[in-house]
Amino acid sequence: MTSTATLDLTGRMLVAGTPVRGTGVEIRGIDPQTGKVLEPGYAYGDESNVEAACAAAAAAFPAYRATTAEDRARFLETIADNLESIRDALVERAHAESGLPRPRLTGEVGRTSGQLRMFADVLREGSWNEARIDPALPDRTPLPRPDIRQRSVPLGPVAVFGASNFPLAFSVAGGDTASALAAGCPVVVKAHDAHPGTSELVGRAVTDAVGASGLPAGTFSLLYGAGPTLGIALVTDPHIKAVGFTGSRSGGMALVTAAAARREPIPVYAEMSAINPVFLLSGALASHGADLGRAFVGSLTLGSGQFCTNPGLVVAIDGPELDAFVAAAAEAVAAAAPTPMLTPGIAESFRTGVAAVSGEADLVARGSEADSPAVSCRAALFATDSATFQRSEALQAEVFGASGVIVRCADVAEMNRVAAGLEGQLTATIHADESDYGQARELLGTLELKAGRILFNGWPTGVEVGHAMVHGGPFPSTSDSRTTSVGARAIERFLRPVCYQDAPKSLLPSAIADGNPDGLWRRIDGRLTKD
Amino acid sequence: MTSTATLDLTGRMLVAGTPVRGTGVEIRGIDPQTGKVLEPGYAYGDESNVEAACAAAAAAFPAYRATTAEDRARFLETIADNLESIRDALVERAHAESGLPRPRLTGEVGRTSGQLRMFADVLREGSWNEARIDPALPDRTPLPRPDIRQRSVPLGPVAVFGASNFPLAFSVAGGDTASALAAGCPVVVKAHDAHPGTSELVGRAVTDAVGASGLPAGTFSLLYGAGPTLGIALVTDPHIKAVGFTGSRSGGMALVTAAAARREPIPVYAEMSAINPVFLLSGALASHGADLGRAFVGSLTLGSGQFCTNPGLVVAIDGPELDAFVAAAAEAVAAAAPTPMLTPGIAESFRTGVAAVSGEADLVARGSEADSPAVSCRAALFATDSATFQRSEALQAEVFGASGVIVRCADVAEMNRVAAGLEGQLTATIHADESDYGQARELLGTLELKAGRILFNGWPTGVEVGHAMVHGGPFPSTSDSRTTSVGARAIERFLRPVCYQDAPKSLLPSAIADGNPDGLWRRIDGRLTKD
Repeated sequence: MTSTATLDLTGRMLVAGTPVRGTGVEIRGIDPQTGKVLEPGYAYGDESNVEAACAAAAAAFPAYRATTAEDRARFLETIADNLESIRDALVERAHAESGLPRPRLTGEVGRTSGQLRMFADVLREGSWNEARIDPALPDRTPLPRPDIRQRSVPLGPVAVFGASNFPLAFSVAGGDTASALAAGCPVVVKAHDAHPGTSELVGRAVTDAVGASGLPAGTFSLLYGAGPTLGIALVTDPHIKAVGFTGSRSGGMALVTAAAARREPIPVYAEMSAINPVFLLSGALASHGADLGRAFVGSLTLGSGQFCTNPGLVVAIDGPELDAFVAAAAEAVAAAAPTPMLTPGIAESFRTGVAAVSGEADLVARGSEADSPAVSCRAALFATDSATFQRSEALQAEVFGASGVIVRCADVAEMNRVAAGLEGQLTATIHADESDYGQARELLGTLELKAGRILFNGWPTGVEVGHAMVHGGPFPSTSDSRTTSVGARAIERFLRPVCYQDAPKSLLPSAIADGNPDGLWRRIDGRLTKD
Repeated sequence: MTSTATLDLTGRMLVAGTPVRGTGVEIRGIDPQTGKVLEPGYAYGDESNVEAACAAAAAAFPAYRATTAEDRARFLETIADNLESIRDALVERAHAESGLPRPRLTGEVGRTSGQLRMFADVLREGSWNEARIDPALPDRTPLPRPDIRQRSVPLGPVAVFGASNFPLAFSVAGGDTASALAAGCPVVVKAHDAHPGTSELVGRAVTDAVGASGLPAGTFSLLYGAGPTLGIALVTDPHIKAVGFTGSRSGGMALVTAAAARREPIPVYAEMSAINPVFLLSGALASHGADLGRAFVGSLTLGSGQFCTNPGLVVAIDGPELDAFVAAAAEAVAAAAPTPMLTPGIAESFRTGVAAVSGEADLVARGSEADSPAVSCRAALFATDSATFQRSEALQAEVFGASGVIVRCADVAEMNRVAAGLEGQLTATIHADESDYGQARELLGTLELKAGRILFNGWPTGVEVGHAMVHGGPFPSTSDSRTTSVGARAIERFLRPVCYQDAPKSLLPSAIADGNPDGLWRRIDGRLTKD
């Protein structure tokens, strides 16, 4: 634990356990609240670092995947312990680099270690093996049936891209890393430029756990570099077999395109963009429209709106009930203090996005002007009619930050048309009183096909880490709607099925051996059993 | 049942239940054994037919996916019944169009109806719902936990491409159609040109089942057309949400590329090419090498070698034991009578492929010359050393038909290097006596990462339809190694997870409703239960 106990930052990458100084451009963290540049510098790596990290990951893969589920569970718990042991330092550095409030970051440390511990539980429970046995039927006619057994194996080394908006939970030891490591895949992380020091601290915590667990050093590497160069080199390295990414649509699609053009195409799990529509049904709007308006703005402005699940769209029938909602929301937006955004680049994109929206919808309210506008989010709320919304690309595009659009519809049919015309989303929310359930049921049928998570009478910011969570959704919210990036099923992204026909008993993996030595739930001729 | 009871072929497509004559080029089935052209003609459809079929599928989707699992199970069973009721006609027409032996085709009808019945069982068992409930924790601190429940929903209309080599089991009502329909997805099939009449018979059986089951007509359509035009139009139709394909690498990759270039990219499950390596370990080779040689040729020449799982590569240590295998295999190949191939085009590709191999490896034996070489498969067996094999693209490429290459290795290390250098495969086979288990274990570690199915002491032709089967594998054997095209888990290809947060009880789907009304295995807080 010495290297994480000693929290002096070194500015180095971690290539298979070895600190390596990059040779490229040097970046530094920037405190978005003060503009202060934070030491040390982190020099970008180059293709030779990518090759070294990926080759080490490939070399580590056979031994790493041969570990038991219990071995990997303890490894993940050791990472979690290490993160918790440096919680204060992590929170301080992440606060300085991101401007995110300390309580939020304290929670995020807990979420990150909690995710690692959840995957330890998932590993021990064992259903991820997908163990299946179709026993031989030697007397079957016209042909005997062979013995066929199925289990899951890991895909191979995985590339993970840290996210700007979750310096911990979606970054170096975040959900993608935790689920890939759980699956038995070595991981090579590209740190996000917005929080290089936080990334180093977490990277060292993982590296220490690799060493303490007696795992091959190549099980984990951490690189710094530009997306279009080092990032693409990482995705196109032949040793890499899958990619996890959380970020912008353009960034995600660049990785998808690069991965598809490889000699051996590989899956990319890119979580990209969403406007997370909220449908206010008439009963709910009539009974507590003003409360909903205030609560909406609470969700809209949380973390300066820098959440993938930020509710950027409200759809409701026009009328005095909606007016009450809009009035309360407008008041809350106008009262919203400017809050720091993660980086000057994100703040600039927010201003550009808000300008594009303001060209096509009516401004309802704006938050107060900031003292340091370069890195501040000034909340914005717009309104328009459904025809305008439906023909406007700008209004349907994500604005990353606290900007929302209210769409005033003439009637239920128009609300349903807006829903049917939406692109894929991470979340969709319905506010409904009991009197609204008929309409809610119809809307649900549409929204199920548009989003990965559907909320009732709540707000989409805040994603539970659990067994039932789906954080994903149809394109363009993600590049692969068939999976989730949060929750227990994320381990499935990095596994594939293999079956064994008439394998000698002594060669069978324990998950599918006779006598069920691992005590798993397995399917025998399709029926679940622990026998 | 009248329209399938009346087996006169009409030469028409089936667009959402309506027979439609195409307006393009007219194709006809050809009996490969006689060259005889078979009536009637089938005129190709055009983009307007694609649009009509896909729009009807999209229109049918809400009602079709709202059916119960029991409804869909009975629908699949009705299709199976309909196919069995026209078994003799199917076998006769498929025999005429493909030249495949009647007993094989009789078995294939049974396999096709068996697949449909298996998915009916899968639907009733219900685990495909992936039902999960994380109950609310209202007293949790610092924040209460909402109620979160997950289930699977179908992706939407699916395009299925019929295969040349399985006119029934991988075509109009084959595995892809059965699993997509089971998942709740309407299906639009493009018939393969090699068996248009068989396709019409099967299409009518499905259409009749749609009508008898009271389902929307757009649940199923059958089109005829060219791959590069109608096929691409089908894959790029915005209503289509996933694609199933079995065929060549170039054909599959054309669909993958088209699907990725869509405004909304969609998953393509393309099963493409494999050489299905067979490793003969020393003990097995020494104890029964000649028997293995004969059995190998039995698998190599089965169905004129026109199986995705045809064993096109044998790897063993050079020496007198391998010589005995080669001698027996050579004798069997030389004695092999010429057998018809599916189409003149496939026969021509086979000749080209064999010529390419013969330029880079030594000919060991060939089957006897055919009377009608235009459509005949003349078996071919080659041998080479491992260095030549490893540097030759031609020797590593699939030759569709009865052509195999034996790679003579100097030692175990060289065998392992050949294994490590292989591209992705559908299957890999190890022949091993007990004395070989040490080497087999090491090889298994490599082959698990290369293939979807690993066989011991058997031959890869013959794919069981069951719960544990994996028919798939890493690229280029398929475009998506995370799934199988045969067996119960194929239903997962056409489903995606959705979660519901704090949904009112009356709006919850029955799979995740309180009290478990569907009697499913569900995960409550991650633990499997039927409570």
